[in-house]
Amino acid sequence: MSSQRKVLDIRGRRFGGGTPLICSSLVGRSAERIANEARSTLAKGADVLEWRVDFFDGIGDTEAVLATARGLRAAIGDTPLIFTRRGTREAGQPIALGEDAVLRLYDAVAAAGVIDLLEYEMDSAPARVRQARNIASAHGVQLILSYHDFDATPGLDELVERFEQAELQMADVAKIAVMPRVRDDVLNLLIATARADARLGIPVISMSMGAQGVVTRMMGDAFGSAMTFAVGETRSAPGQLPIADLRAVFDVLQRAKGG
Amino acid sequence: MSSQRKVLDIRGRRFGGGTPLICSSLVGRSAERIANEARSTLAKGADVLEWRVDFFDGIGDTEAVLATARGLRAAIGDTPLIFTRRGTREAGQPIALGEDAVLRLYDAVAAAGVIDLLEYEMDSAPARVRQARNIASAHGVQLILSYHDFDATPGLDELVERFEQAELQMADVAKIAVMPRVRDDVLNLLIATARADARLGIPVISMSMGAQGVVTRMMGDAFGSAMTFAVGETRSAPGQLPIADLRAVFDVLQRAKGG
Repeated sequence: MSSQRKVLDIRGRRFGGGTPLICSSLVGRSAERIANEARSTLAKGADVLEWRVDFFDGIGDTEAVLATARGLRAAIGDTPLIFTRRGTREAGQPIALGEDAVLRLYDAVAAAGVIDLLEYEMDSAPARVRQARNIASAHGVQLILSYHDFDATPGLDELVERFEQAELQMADVAKIAVMPRVRDDVLNLLIATARADARLGIPVISMSMGAQGVVTRMMGDAFGSAMTFAVGETRSAPGQLPIADLRAVFDVLQRAKGG
Repeated sequence: MSSQRKVLDIRGRRFGGGTPLICSSLVGRSAERIANEARSTLAKGADVLEWRVDFFDGIGDTEAVLATARGLRAAIGDTPLIFTRRGTREAGQPIALGEDAVLRLYDAVAAAGVIDLLEYEMDSAPARVRQARNIASAHGVQLILSYHDFDATPGLDELVERFEQAELQMADVAKIAVMPRVRDDVLNLLIATARADARLGIPVISMSMGAQGVVTRMMGDAFGSAMTFAVGETRSAPGQLPIADLRAVFDVLQRAKGG
């Protein structure tokens, strides 16, 4: 059972405990596009936004990134905002920055006080994961350590170890997104999530991607995933549902709990 | 993966393979009430109806049961109809008939040619299960062998064995409905269902009951349950959703498959 201790409250949004938060990724290439995307996505009912800065044309220009982040914050008010450069090894966009430059960018954006969470890959070099941890701590933002596999799903033990690895690396939130090939992959993702939620002291986020895994995006409350990703304007991973569809399912589940 | 071989086609409704059928139970005490319940439940979109004859005041009068079954068939046209006397050990209503009289009633109703499936408890005395099997075969109806536990969920191995037991006892469909106490009970039900669907040559139906298990009523397509029970007029087990809510969730899943 999920316990109360690990609920993370960010701007009044609760990560962990009850209906999962709905997050949409912003994948615009320009500042204007990103701000528009944010507004329309919020209008559709997202709880949390993630800026996937690897899609941003100006990623090499720190001032442009900061100006865009400030504009985004102005546009979204008190909505929790995740800042993510997804690496190409985990299906992010190719960018011109090296890893040190990425971490300098993380530091600059975290220092500007406009984002709430940083997401970084747990499979990065340990020294870099430590740096990401230190950056987040120094500026009072939360760190999501994530693992993605768009091709397959590791076995149950490895999935559980991945969640545990994130906690060992001092993540504030652990996230795993993997692609199922067979039905057992979907079950293993749910089992690992439930185990991680029971054992870890931090909220966990998980999903099995694609059409076969889509049910896992709906069932965070039942098996312990604190957040689910839905389509605002543009799908950022296979299997994401439109926000309205996901909200409709959560409403059904909420009524079922009450009845 | 569910295979095509085991799809059971009853009046054009496919048990096994794809979106689960939605079944509602009729629990009226009088013939008139039952016919009204059937009409309003079909209008709400049920695919299959189950007449829970243990709720029927006239259960002791075979002619009254037959007349009611005929009226029901006239009211529901080509909708598949399950005839079920649920025993009190598995939370059915107390009735005045002994077990031999119940099987005589099953025989009379099956002989009348108005029902499509008989449901009987797999935990009954083996000789009686054989009788139920023979009655179904003699009159060309399908036999569901079922197991219910409204108090707890057996361990994973026992759940799998229960499904296998139904097949060994020559069921045409195996059904298990159990109450979860912890999250692992819900997971075990899903795992057992997926295993049974992979191993058995007959369609399986499963659900984890109550608020905690409600997600299992939505996920038959993902894990192999061929049918799910929803509320037409009166909830017949804890956790059942209204038909419209379940249909809305299936629509979301269907769109997600297409997209």
